[in-house]
Amino acid sequence: MKEIWVIKRDGKIERFSRDKVLRSLLRVGLSESEAWEVLTELEKILPEMTTTRYIHRVIKNILSYQHPHAKHRYTLKQAIMKLGPEGYPFEKYFAKLLETQGYRVRTNIIFEGRCVSHEVDVVAEKNDKRYMVECKYHNSQGIYTGIKVALYVKARLEDLSEYFDNAWLATNTKFSEEAIQYVQCVGMKATAWSYPPGEALEDLVEKTRLYPLTILDDIPRRFRVKLLKAGMVTLRDFVSAQPRRLAEITGLSEHDIEVLQKKGRIVLEK
Amino acid sequence: MKEIWVIKRDGKIERFSRDKVLRSLLRVGLSESEAWEVLTELEKILPEMTTTRYIHRVIKNILSYQHPHAKHRYTLKQAIMKLGPEGYPFEKYFAKLLETQGYRVRTNIIFEGRCVSHEVDVVAEKNDKRYMVECKYHNSQGIYTGIKVALYVKARLEDLSEYFDNAWLATNTKFSEEAIQYVQCVGMKATAWSYPPGEALEDLVEKTRLYPLTILDDIPRRFRVKLLKAGMVTLRDFVSAQPRRLAEITGLSEHDIEVLQKKGRIVLEK
Repeated sequence: MKEIWVIKRDGKIERFSRDKVLRSLLRVGLSESEAWEVLTELEKILPEMTTTRYIHRVIKNILSYQHPHAKHRYTLKQAIMKLGPEGYPFEKYFAKLLETQGYRVRTNIIFEGRCVSHEVDVVAEKNDKRYMVECKYHNSQGIYTGIKVALYVKARLEDLSEYFDNAWLATNTKFSEEAIQYVQCVGMKATAWSYPPGEALEDLVEKTRLYPLTILDDIPRRFRVKLLKAGMVTLRDFVSAQPRRLAEITGLSEHDIEVLQKKGRIVLEK
Repeated sequence: MKEIWVIKRDGKIERFSRDKVLRSLLRVGLSESEAWEVLTELEKILPEMTTTRYIHRVIKNILSYQHPHAKHRYTLKQAIMKLGPEGYPFEKYFAKLLETQGYRVRTNIIFEGRCVSHEVDVVAEKNDKRYMVECKYHNSQGIYTGIKVALYVKARLEDLSEYFDNAWLATNTKFSEEAIQYVQCVGMKATAWSYPPGEALEDLVEKTRLYPLTILDDIPRRFRVKLLKAGMVTLRDFVSAQPRRLAEITGLSEHDIEVLQKKGRIVLEK
């Protein structure tokens, strides 16, 4: 088997990891044998020296004709994962999702607890219930959100129990089985990748169609970062903004912006 | 200023870090100006390419004539820190400390909690009280044990409250101020580097004279690892064992063992 080297987004070079690819394919719903098939095809296509960006593009390409539904999930998972490194915090994105679901939200508020003060990522209110939302963002795919996180959120809720009715743990990765067992047992609200079924993070995004801007691969990264910094975090924000304003933010021409907006509209109409 | 490169214990090479040295000197009780003086002298002595081991030796040397008390603490802190990488878990060492204090101890026991099962590092009993001891070991000096750890220990205790009277958080690093505030407020027992005053980890070690074997720099690392694996974790175990047995474990000659035991006795009699 040929050896493949990967130039990562931060410029570091590392050996191509079959494990990483397999894990990410299993996460988006492929069976083990389907994941191996995609991996085999991917390795045939990749040159000996490649980039993370190119690998993702090829995977999406293979998925799009073999497993269209998995392709969409793969793109979405990557897009949410990309928000962090590009400077947009996951808690702000999750707050937006909650807002579209009818919650009143505030982010990064400090509360004086019984014992110590805590910064709460998102305060969410609806139907006279107030939730202490703790957002756990992981930059990398291999990581689960585990029991320890669920435990400390519970203890934090108790220290702040005079302010909140319940805690809500939100993460962009999967929960470990133990974490699921625990949040169910103590009755904590929780949202993760593929949990809870039907109301998982990806379901919320699909339902609200609040795709992150990072789902659009055609916007070069440096322009995307500028847009995110200007508060333009969803694809909908992007396609509905004035081309002139977007041109000012990014430095791209209005014509280029219009082409990108058109591509964005196609994703939204899917 | 000349540039200094350091070969670490794992073979990796990195730039010499003034910050790391300053932090470790502040930790063992030097004032900021004293720490800077030691650093300046250290940098004069170090060659352009050196090892972690050699840096520690020079620091100990400088401390031994300028700040003897700090030297002892520096050696002890390093020695406890070394247990982990050399294969001896901190929780077993802390259990030994508790045993010498009259506690009945068991390590790594799994309990079925109300919601999930938990592995408890040390179960410690004394005067009809039973403690759930959670040991947090950090390999590196720059790290504090923070509020999140204290919070999850509290929630774990609650899930196991039918088995335990209280939780006990033990760590080889310092606590953050928030963590101290929290453990005091909820009444959790806690032991860390320099906390609580008079009964901190280093005080416990001094009081029991249960110095870890790793405090003796003269035993080459590969022999020390063999001794630790054979359960010989304290200096006292080492000096009171039969030279022939130690020779069998390490492969050193009985004469070499006797020389090392003599050095160990000097440390113990200090």
